[in-house]
Amino acid sequence: MAKPLNISPDRLFPAEGKTRDIARALYAEVKALPIVSPHGHTDPAWFATDANWSNATELLLAPDHYLYRMLYSQGIALDALGVPDRSGAPATDPRAAWRLFAANFHLFRGTPSRMWLDHVFADVFDFDVALDASTADLYYDRVNESLASPAFRPRALFDRFNIELLATTEGAHEDLDHHAAIRASGWAGRVVTTYRPDAVVDPEHHDFAAAMRRFAELTGEDVESWQGYLAAHRKRRADFRAAGATATDHGHPSAATANLSPTEAEALFAKVVGGRWTPADAELFRAQMLTELAAMSVEDGMVMQIHPGACRNHNHKLFESHGRDKGCDIPMRTDYVQALKPLLDRFGTETRLSIILFTLDESTYARELAPLAGHYPCLKLGPAWWFHDSPEGMRRFREMTTETAGFYNTVGFNDDTRAFLSIPARHDVARRVDCAFLARLVAEHRLADWEAADVARELAHGLVRKAYKLDDPAFAPRAAEAVPA
Amino acid sequence: MAKPLNISPDRLFPAEGKTRDIARALYAEVKALPIVSPHGHTDPAWFATDANWSNATELLLAPDHYLYRMLYSQGIALDALGVPDRSGAPATDPRAAWRLFAANFHLFRGTPSRMWLDHVFADVFDFDVALDASTADLYYDRVNESLASPAFRPRALFDRFNIELLATTEGAHEDLDHHAAIRASGWAGRVVTTYRPDAVVDPEHHDFAAAMRRFAELTGEDVESWQGYLAAHRKRRADFRAAGATATDHGHPSAATANLSPTEAEALFAKVVGGRWTPADAELFRAQMLTELAAMSVEDGMVMQIHPGACRNHNHKLFESHGRDKGCDIPMRTDYVQALKPLLDRFGTETRLSIILFTLDESTYARELAPLAGHYPCLKLGPAWWFHDSPEGMRRFREMTTETAGFYNTVGFNDDTRAFLSIPARHDVARRVDCAFLARLVAEHRLADWEAADVARELAHGLVRKAYKLDDPAFAPRAAEAVPA
Amino acid sequence: MAKPLNISPDRLFPAEGKTRDIARALYAEVKALPIVSPHGHTDPAWFATDANWSNATELLLAPDHYLYRMLYSQGIALDALGVPDRSGAPATDPRAAWRLFAANFHLFRGTPSRMWLDHVFADVFDFDVALDASTADLYYDRVNESLASPAFRPRALFDRFNIELLATTEGAHEDLDHHAAIRASGWAGRVVTTYRPDAVVDPEHHDFAAAMRRFAELTGEDVESWQGYLAAHRKRRADFRAAGATATDHGHPSAATANLSPTEAEALFAKVVGGRWTPADAELFRAQMLTELAAMSVEDGMVMQIHPGACRNHNHKLFESHGRDKGCDIPMRTDYVQALKPLLDRFGTETRLSIILFTLDESTYARELAPLAGHYPCLKLGPAWWFHDSPEGMRRFREMTTETAGFYNTVGFNDDTRAFLSIPARHDVARRVDCAFLARLVAEHRLADWEAADVARELAHGLVRKAYKLDDPAFAPRAAEAVPA
Repeated sequence: MAKPLNISPDRLFPAEGKTRDIARALYAEVKALPIVSPHGHTDPAWFATDANWSNATELLLAPDHYLYRMLYSQGIALDALGVPDRSGAPATDPRAAWRLFAANFHLFRGTPSRMWLDHVFADVFDFDVALDASTADLYYDRVNESLASPAFRPRALFDRFNIELLATTEGAHEDLDHHAAIRASGWAGRVVTTYRPDAVVDPEHHDFAAAMRRFAELTGEDVESWQGYLAAHRKRRADFRAAGATATDHGHPSAATANLSPTEAEALFAKVVGGRWTPADAELFRAQMLTELAAMSVEDGMVMQIHPGACRNHNHKLFESHGRDKGCDIPMRTDYVQALKPLLDRFGTETRLSIILFTLDESTYARELAPLAGHYPCLKLGPAWWFHDSPEGMRRFREMTTETAGFYNTVGFNDDTRAFLSIPARHDVARRVDCAFLARLVAEHRLADWEAADVARELAHGLVRKAYKLDDPAFAPRAAEAVPA
Repeated sequence: MAKPLNISPDRLFPAEGKTRDIARALYAEVKALPIVSPHGHTDPAWFATDANWSNATELLLAPDHYLYRMLYSQGIALDALGVPDRSGAPATDPRAAWRLFAANFHLFRGTPSRMWLDHVFADVFDFDVALDASTADLYYDRVNESLASPAFRPRALFDRFNIELLATTEGAHEDLDHHAAIRASGWAGRVVTTYRPDAVVDPEHHDFAAAMRRFAELTGEDVESWQGYLAAHRKRRADFRAAGATATDHGHPSAATANLSPTEAEALFAKVVGGRWTPADAELFRAQMLTELAAMSVEDGMVMQIHPGACRNHNHKLFESHGRDKGCDIPMRTDYVQALKPLLDRFGTETRLSIILFTLDESTYARELAPLAGHYPCLKLGPAWWFHDSPEGMRRFREMTTETAGFYNTVGFNDDTRAFLSIPARHDVARRVDCAFLARLVAEHRLADWEAADVARELAHGLVRKAYKLDDPAFAPRAAEAVPA
Repeated sequence: MAKPLNISPDRLFPAEGKTRDIARALYAEVKALPIVSPHGHTDPAWFATDANWSNATELLLAPDHYLYRMLYSQGIALDALGVPDRSGAPATDPRAAWRLFAANFHLFRGTPSRMWLDHVFADVFDFDVALDASTADLYYDRVNESLASPAFRPRALFDRFNIELLATTEGAHEDLDHHAAIRASGWAGRVVTTYRPDAVVDPEHHDFAAAMRRFAELTGEDVESWQGYLAAHRKRRADFRAAGATATDHGHPSAATANLSPTEAEALFAKVVGGRWTPADAELFRAQMLTELAAMSVEDGMVMQIHPGACRNHNHKLFESHGRDKGCDIPMRTDYVQALKPLLDRFGTETRLSIILFTLDESTYARELAPLAGHYPCLKLGPAWWFHDSPEGMRRFREMTTETAGFYNTVGFNDDTRAFLSIPARHDVARRVDCAFLARLVAEHRLADWEAADVARELAHGLVRKAYKLDDPAFAPRAAEAVPA
């Protein structure tokens, strides 16, 4: 018999009665605030075309590496889940894939994926029985039926989800056509882009050569000369700002920065474009480029996001068969103190610079990141990220950063997701965990209740707008300019 | 006046009322489940001979480095506690040693040793007053009296403790005579061995040369040739499987693995047996051997356990006077991401391979181990180990691994102990801490109560049987074969 | 309208009713115990001259890098806060600086600075409204008025704070005149010094050359010869012991120690005083000096404190403009296991040696520090330090060290502060957090209530006196000797 699906209004609140009451009161202040999603990976084509999604497996399962990673770890083949390999999507029946997922849904007990999905199932699709083998078909059919209806098209859900702003991420070598189409369509939803130059900054990126060619085409610059290459970045940053971007994003293996002389930087670049670089050269070039891009941020005011520390594509055989982003990126120990010093020695006191730091290495929260953000005006702390974007991970983030960095050197929540339907669930988890943390401070007489309510609103809505300069007039006018095709 | 000894039925449960009620209900489901102890260091001679133990000091104090480590740290000489040095046991009166221990028992406040011992005192020996200077003699006399009785002989306690399986650990160079004797005796208790080849795999092991000679004698192989050496491992693995082993165990300074070509591996081995190796060669040889032994596990199905990260015998003078395993092993920072990659590049997708990873470096739980186990089908997470085998350590293990690896990529509890009498106490602590963790998830509406009960049973009994292949028919038939003398 | 300032008698106690009751009862046992402050940075001139302090900004804000660090991180200039730069104090109106601080006091929500200050405001200055922009002048005027009164002079507050002993820290190259004046004055307050030789031990110290000259003058030794240099240390240690010192303190970038032969050490020293050293030489010299100073501690019994792991003056431009100790020291990853081995190999079993270890790297608590202190008789654990001297930091310290090191290998609390008025607040936080931790152990039946009370008293008062040898007769006689001018 099917089990009930209960999404308790008290989920994630502490069990202790007084503290739970305080958490409830704080959450009531922030529950209905609009969602600002300043960093994520949804597909702008969805909002440009507003086409219906196809089916439950293709929307919810096959693209979500959080889900198939866990199923794969228990011996389930990716093909059987409909996950594409290098030759494309497998010939797997999507209903069969869904049934396999449903029969193994117990594997997600205690994980945030389980919590996000249950929220989606209950709130978006109105289920009141839990997903398991016995309800797999019920789920599959109802989700598909819903997805075919107008109320479940991307723009309708965007409005229903009360999203105030959604940022996608595009490469420096990619066009912004979907963003142009969104603007041209007259739809009022605010979907902006983010400048992610990794593919033209990282010589070890599998796509580096092709991305550099495209980078040259899009900018008309000689990107094989150092000055032309830097000019190309400046041009594309202007394009991205015109498409609403207020931020850049950098996903490097480490947080290393460098501060080479112009001559040294040019010589290094010559090695890189000449294809004569070593892995150490590649690391140094990425490091130098963070500093060069910081210089551009000092000029144009774009906020830098640094997301370091993942060992990408750790499973060699799976990378060969299925390609990148297949749930086998593994975090590594990451240093910030020495790594960021070259950049900070040069720009650490620039008032126009703002860098948001993320980590996959929680041991740096209290030791490195909170002290850095608690001192440098240009540094802020991004929220708990990726593997740590979870109730326990968020709790540790607050417990380990607040006492040194305070709340006001943090930047609210990032969902960082391509799973559009889960965005409200993810923001809701963040709000609940923050309210639970604040409730403990109030219950332990470390903060007054009215202060906690003030902080809760900042964490849910205020700080993100400020940190990403969403109300900065320097960005607003540009955002109103025509978007290049 | 003596203080009462109270072992509360609610110990280790959260104080908050609703959560405690949930924890109690969960614990009621698992309290009486049989004990499976798949990794430990008890002496198989105990079960082979079933002889009575001698006295409290020789059984409970002198061999337990958890205990004398703490007493030594407060300035108490090991000799005064009856701890043997390189010349053998000291001429210390065991009663005097016990009195010294009792007078300093307050040093263990807040430690798991205190909790385990109180459990043993109350449940095994039926004390109702606490151990201190005033009760030292009462304890010493009653424990000795009990130990002399038939009900306290090893097999009787094995049955009383409801142990379903107990694994000991023997070296590749050691005989399995006690295991043979246990089988030959007709006793129904299931005591199996584990293949631990460190002494013939680690050129820096103090016993390497002697162990290699014995390895040659036991196998009849030319262990100074690379092929003969590998063949000797295969032969001994078969011997161990015949003595019930389903697993191997590897206690290396790091988790480093290597993937040398056969020619390189043979050349490295020649250096090692030729005695011309450097510390870097020794590290590389251990690393390569993990991959060679993984290859054998792919063949024979034995589960690998990797226990890395201890700096052994850190106290140089104490090592000189007293030898190894004297409570002065200190954990070190340990990397898994790069360290395991060579082995995983070769065997990471082999379905017959199963590797259980342990750590002494908790910073790797959320950053490295949970992401690795939450992806690779061949990787599972061993429980909180050694210094972290404690209520707070186990709680951190669940809090830092569950959200990424789930519960089903973990393997239940290991007691990892030579302190046989404490085995029920140790498993009980693990069950209580897991129930407390699950109770919090239920109280915070992150898991349904029936799901938590299901998980609790898996953590206490189900997962360990699966992870160690105890029900795998590939092992059962061999286990029934005659055990070689 | 002004908000009330409430300092709840239950602050920092767990919300859960039974546990809070236990915490209250434990705290009642330790609340009124005298304060022993064995390590800090108050100015001995205060107690020598007993002059009134000037005003709120100069006493509470401008010298406190915890405060201006946070304000600076939010874009507030140090000059505007009255913080001196290399040319001296800025011409900032102290009232304007105070108003700026008050208007931004919300930035400290959730930080220990907020908790300490509220305690000072309520208990020392008797405020009942909270500090914010609307109460800035009220605060500024009342604090200044109080500071001008006899009851707020240093010695009066020392007595009011119930301080039993206060240790300051002086350099090896600094005179002890203020300490001499304190003794000569006949005042009964026990203010002692601590031997901090960093400036003459660290070739990279900005003041090394000048400090070495002063070191020679004060001792009459040829400090450019290795034997003369060591003799100078011995002489000054005797001077410091005569000024009440029982301890030395060492703030190195790492915990590295070395064990060079006398010849090697002398050759290294020649490089150092000859100015021909590399950064690696400097690190090796600091490392060797820890071992040399340990040898002196074996002779004279002085307790060593090692405070490693800060990257000093990380903000290069701010260091150039404002000098050292300006809130931009950032912790680094720190190793202890290999770092301390050379020293421990030589002196690890010396019963006269006592070393108190501190860390800024919490990942070492459970992995390295608790195992080291839980074994070596000469090692003890200092309390949670600097960025971790906070409620969450202290809780993590107990949770991660107690199970391996117990309570009795820790040394009570250090306030480590130059903010004299906050000393009672800081000790109060430590006592409350320890009582809360102990209360949880009692509520979870891991410790009896009477044991917890016993431990609470030790943590608040007993252990610090023992660890710093404050009752050691070897120090008492010397403390009564005449203090050199």
